Amino acid sequence: MKGFGSDNHSGIHPELLRALIESNTDHAPSYGTDVYSEKASALFKKEFGPQTETYFVFNGTAANVLALRFLMKRHEAVLCSNVSHLNVDECGAPEFFAGKLIPLPHDQGKLTLSILKEALIRQGDQHFSQARVVSLTQPTEYGTCYSLNEIKEITTWAHSNHLYVHIDGARLANALQFLDCTYKEMTTDLGVDVVSFGGTKNGLMMGEAILVLNTELAKGAHQQLKYIRKQSAQLPSKTRFIAAQFSSYLDHQLYLQISHHACEMAERLLQGLKQIPQVRITCERQSNAVFAMIPQAWVKPLREKYFFYVWDEKTFECRLMTSWDTTTAEVDEFIHRVQQLAR
Amino acid sequence: MKGFGSDNHSGIHPELLRALIESNTDHAPSYGTDVYSEKASALFKKEFGPQTETYFVFNGTAANVLALRFLMKRHEAVLCSNVSHLNVDECGAPEFFAGKLIPLPHDQGKLTLSILKEALIRQGDQHFSQARVVSLTQPTEYGTCYSLNEIKEITTWAHSNHLYVHIDGARLANALQFLDCTYKEMTTDLGVDVVSFGGTKNGLMMGEAILVLNTELAKGAHQQLKYIRKQSAQLPSKTRFIAAQFSSYLDHQLYLQISHHACEMAERLLQGLKQIPQVRITCERQSNAVFAMIPQAWVKPLREKYFFYVWDEKTFECRLMTSWDTTTAEVDEFIHRVQQLAR
Amino acid sequence: MKGFGSDNHSGIHPELLRALIESNTDHAPSYGTDVYSEKASALFKKEFGPQTETYFVFNGTAANVLALRFLMKRHEAVLCSNVSHLNVDECGAPEFFAGKLIPLPHDQGKLTLSILKEALIRQGDQHFSQARVVSLTQPTEYGTCYSLNEIKEITTWAHSNHLYVHIDGARLANALQFLDCTYKEMTTDLGVDVVSFGGTKNGLMMGEAILVLNTELAKGAHQQLKYIRKQSAQLPSKTRFIAAQFSSYLDHQLYLQISHHACEMAERLLQGLKQIPQVRITCERQSNAVFAMIPQAWVKPLREKYFFYVWDEKTFECRLMTSWDTTTAEVDEFIHRVQQLAR
Amino acid sequence: MKGFGSDNHSGIHPELLRALIESNTDHAPSYGTDVYSEKASALFKKEFGPQTETYFVFNGTAANVLALRFLMKRHEAVLCSNVSHLNVDECGAPEFFAGKLIPLPHDQGKLTLSILKEALIRQGDQHFSQARVVSLTQPTEYGTCYSLNEIKEITTWAHSNHLYVHIDGARLANALQFLDCTYKEMTTDLGVDVVSFGGTKNGLMMGEAILVLNTELAKGAHQQLKYIRKQSAQLPSKTRFIAAQFSSYLDHQLYLQISHHACEMAERLLQGLKQIPQVRITCERQSNAVFAMIPQAWVKPLREKYFFYVWDEKTFECRLMTSWDTTTAEVDEFIHRVQQLAR
Repeated sequence: MKGFGSDNHSGIHPELLRALIESNTDHAPSYGTDVYSEKASALFKKEFGPQTETYFVFNGTAANVLALRFLMKRHEAVLCSNVSHLNVDECGAPEFFAGKLIPLPHDQGKLTLSILKEALIRQGDQHFSQARVVSLTQPTEYGTCYSLNEIKEITTWAHSNHLYVHIDGARLANALQFLDCTYKEMTTDLGVDVVSFGGTKNGLMMGEAILVLNTELAKGAHQQLKYIRKQSAQLPSKTRFIAAQFSSYLDHQLYLQISHHACEMAERLLQGLKQIPQVRITCERQSNAVFAMIPQAWVKPLREKYFFYVWDEKTFECRLMTSWDTTTAEVDEFIHRVQQLAR
Repeated sequence: MKGFGSDNHSGIHPELLRALIESNTDHAPSYGTDVYSEKASALFKKEFGPQTETYFVFNGTAANVLALRFLMKRHEAVLCSNVSHLNVDECGAPEFFAGKLIPLPHDQGKLTLSILKEALIRQGDQHFSQARVVSLTQPTEYGTCYSLNEIKEITTWAHSNHLYVHIDGARLANALQFLDCTYKEMTTDLGVDVVSFGGTKNGLMMGEAILVLNTELAKGAHQQLKYIRKQSAQLPSKTRFIAAQFSSYLDHQLYLQISHHACEMAERLLQGLKQIPQVRITCERQSNAVFAMIPQAWVKPLREKYFFYVWDEKTFECRLMTSWDTTTAEVDEFIHRVQQLAR
Repeated sequence: MKGFGSDNHSGIHPELLRALIESNTDHAPSYGTDVYSEKASALFKKEFGPQTETYFVFNGTAANVLALRFLMKRHEAVLCSNVSHLNVDECGAPEFFAGKLIPLPHDQGKLTLSILKEALIRQGDQHFSQARVVSLTQPTEYGTCYSLNEIKEITTWAHSNHLYVHIDGARLANALQFLDCTYKEMTTDLGVDVVSFGGTKNGLMMGEAILVLNTELAKGAHQQLKYIRKQSAQLPSKTRFIAAQFSSYLDHQLYLQISHHACEMAERLLQGLKQIPQVRITCERQSNAVFAMIPQAWVKPLREKYFFYVWDEKTFECRLMTSWDTTTAEVDEFIHRVQQLAR
Repeated sequence: MKGFGSDNHSGIHPELLRALIESNTDHAPSYGTDVYSEKASALFKKEFGPQTETYFVFNGTAANVLALRFLMKRHEAVLCSNVSHLNVDECGAPEFFAGKLIPLPHDQGKLTLSILKEALIRQGDQHFSQARVVSLTQPTEYGTCYSLNEIKEITTWAHSNHLYVHIDGARLANALQFLDCTYKEMTTDLGVDVVSFGGTKNGLMMGEAILVLNTELAKGAHQQLKYIRKQSAQLPSKTRFIAAQFSSYLDHQLYLQISHHACEMAERLLQGLKQIPQVRITCERQSNAVFAMIPQAWVKPLREKYFFYVWDEKTFECRLMTSWDTTTAEVDEFIHRVQQLAR
């Protein structure tokens, strides 16, 4: 059984599984001192720049909240969109681990510079939790991507106001497809300070990486982030099994192959749905998700075979998500089913 | 390269890896609603009693601190031994997630009833953090095991004083070997309330389970523990890969086979070391660890091939730990090396 | 020097100071077991109903966040207005002590039932922090008051959805003037669960009271709130000096005299400002604050003698606040100065 | 009714009350920007050195835990005695606000350098919460005082190991009597970093001060401690009433007069008790407390008129505490009663 529910419904990509299995020999030191972790860290340096410091954790919520806990004091605040995963899908984990969120309005999932400027108020006022981090999601929860210019604008403004910029990159590779650039061009070169680099939604069994890109922060990370990670219960003992997957993912640019396929399948889905007059596309497709309003009566029969989420219970805006294992046959059959309902 | 450093230096047991690979087909709902999680939960009910509620998490620190967070209020306290993993190996995670620890003296790693009674003071006094949980490690950090009677005594006393009993069971199966009983006889039947059930140190790639055994608590767990787990960044999205391993571990009692082997190897190691006059065994061997004082000059040459930990830098008490993959050849070669140094 | 900055710029009301001085004899047991605390608690029972349990704390932020910490689990959330003191004036204290805030749009400072209904989403979804408390401010940050009907509507809806209702009543007595009712009619009788009862802004030197009104919660409070208060560093040792002031405040209804005067002065201020065409009143006056847009050029000269806050730096909406010690002469002189500027 | 229960059973010293009353005129800006706060801060600079930064808070627990929260990261630890107020009388507040405590054995309430050295282990090990602060109580919970040499030894060792030194000085002035030195000689000159400076137990109505003495820390305090204080619900709005008392306490060295009296009364009590063979003094008297074992049968009749605490329920070691308002007549009558029982 497969569907368009989420890219975390997929299993492990065969090449990543092979890497995992190959690392399963003999003993390896635990807690990240193994050769697999060293190799993966070196590959992250290659992709994001030599200053990059990498901290493996178990899941995406952890990558986000530990990155924040590292970047801010408990009494400070994060500027984020009100539909960000941080704000609505982590059960208050950011407030538990890190500090206050200041949720802001968005444009198709994206924060704009003018929204951010308006939110940066009461600086120096002890009664008001002081913003220290801007958190962007790339691609956003609506599948849109910040352009390189938009990121640059935000990091420049943020740094001139003593704010750090964090990217929630649970599906970061997918943004490369739309922006046609490298990881480094999208992050380090634009001044992004810390990235939550996703694995789970991109074909790994599990595992995420916190990447400290800011040179100064990277130097100090070892004195803070390793303890923060341990205290937050996110230090994997058999780290090699996460690291081996990431090495395979980064080596020979497997991530491009995986993200290319997922995005291509989403585009195929989009083109099919576009032909159906009763379906209305609600967001530009810029990664591996298609957002569309689907007539309410169709949802149940469609979900019988191909599960997907109704994103807005009032408008019946739905989210259809493709993955590394989505096939053209599945997309075509799904479109066919919609066409039948549309008749 | 292998050694006696820790059972988390080992890789994945072949049968567990096979189970993991077999679960890697098609899509599965994320966050624990898959059939693999259902099956594993059913197997835990079979082993620990039908009231058992199971919550999978990523690692042992998480299992411990989430169990505590579930059992106590933020202003309450845990009675634990001063050498417990909770107190000295979790970087303050219990205090961060759950509440205050009251570390107590121990006897070969074990708390005694008289130590506990002496620590239960100032009840009702708002200035003093009130004890709510007793946490035992089984087997202890020194490889010893609480007898069934000792556990029963402690749970009876604890419950009559409105305290819960938690077991940190990172290597719980190994205690079965020494006590020659079932999981249920060692826990549920004696009134243990919650168990941190370890996987990682017993051959799994990764994964632990919080088992709520107390019937009343189990009924209410769903309204609390699922949110606590998510907020604590411990809800695995591709849960099936943890659950499938646990099913394999529990099914056909693979856990007995694994723990039997590890304990047998430790016994072989013990018997070999006992013959060497310069080595002094410091703890009874009741699981898969041997504690022994080894002449300081021998440590370096021995660790060149077979890594192990010096437990006490002053006395050169060392901990030698066996695992599912320790071979008799390795044990014998190690003993041989010690014998050579002893000449 | 006096002004219209805030009612916490005023000193201690003479009758309250006298009570404080009179309690300064001999020794009194510390931490709330003295006769002054008993008497004040009895008076709160008289005003709010016999089930009322009273916990004295030092300041208003503490009263709010301890009330929330008592009412909710760490993983739950509070529905509050986005201009509430909780959300914008406590430097993230609610998130530090209690849990997540879900800030909502407001109407002249008030939450409406339809806004609340729209915000109560995703119940049972572990990814979404579950609302447990509705927090109202009475009078609101804009000086408006919820009517008895509005409160009743909200508590009825809240309770039918397993939510508690908290009132931030830093200036609660002032609402009595507008609503012409008793404390009990405004809170207990309508199903309000917990009140932060303010002293500091009503003439006390310092001191606030958390009032648990809900009968079931009041029964259990002793087992929770006393420890929460102590752990939160809010247990006063010489409680008698707070309690004695509250007794004087409640006895012979001094609170009505104080609130009547403050509100009357605000009304006098309002009537004076209304006559000046360049000044625009922006909120209904329902307590001791007047909100008005004042021409930007006038603000500086006016504040030289009579300080007040510019509430909105863009529109020059200002807040003018009266107090127990505001005199008619001061109001009249201020109006006179505005009139001079208006010429 | 008076007794020897605690110096916080006493009321407000007449001179301090007069200062409080005199500050009750007109309006004063809230939250510490008033002239009374300025004056008190200047007096603290005079007593502790010009670099001193002062933060007023409500009570002693707050002064302690906010000082710690300022000095350490959430994942770090405090070395303190196992009988310290921090460890046994604050209901887990240090763990809630700041981080882990590592409770250590003591000698008559005092930590020794050798105890501290033994506790500083596993530096750089991410599994072990890293010590960052040494917290001393002066005078200790047993009424003893660290000598200037002992403090110097500890601060020198601490700083060479990147630890800060905090003093819990709830009764700091009393140590001046025994050591015959100034505040500055006892703290700043010896390298103490932060002091919790007590008021409540020394004759104030309420109020404590966090004094940042370390020059580097003092410079940065404004960017951290003001927000920490506000978020921790410890920013007094009518700060003038705390500040005015502290000004009076420091000006003309009223603190010496108060502490001298309290210590003298304790000495008188000691000399009287020493004459009674059935009473055994258990600690050296170095401040305003006398610790003595009193025959169990005498405790009840003695406490009928003069309350005091039984410190150890097993040995009937009792604590008798004097205060600014203890009279020679009261001491003599108490001794007389003991003598009568001794016959």
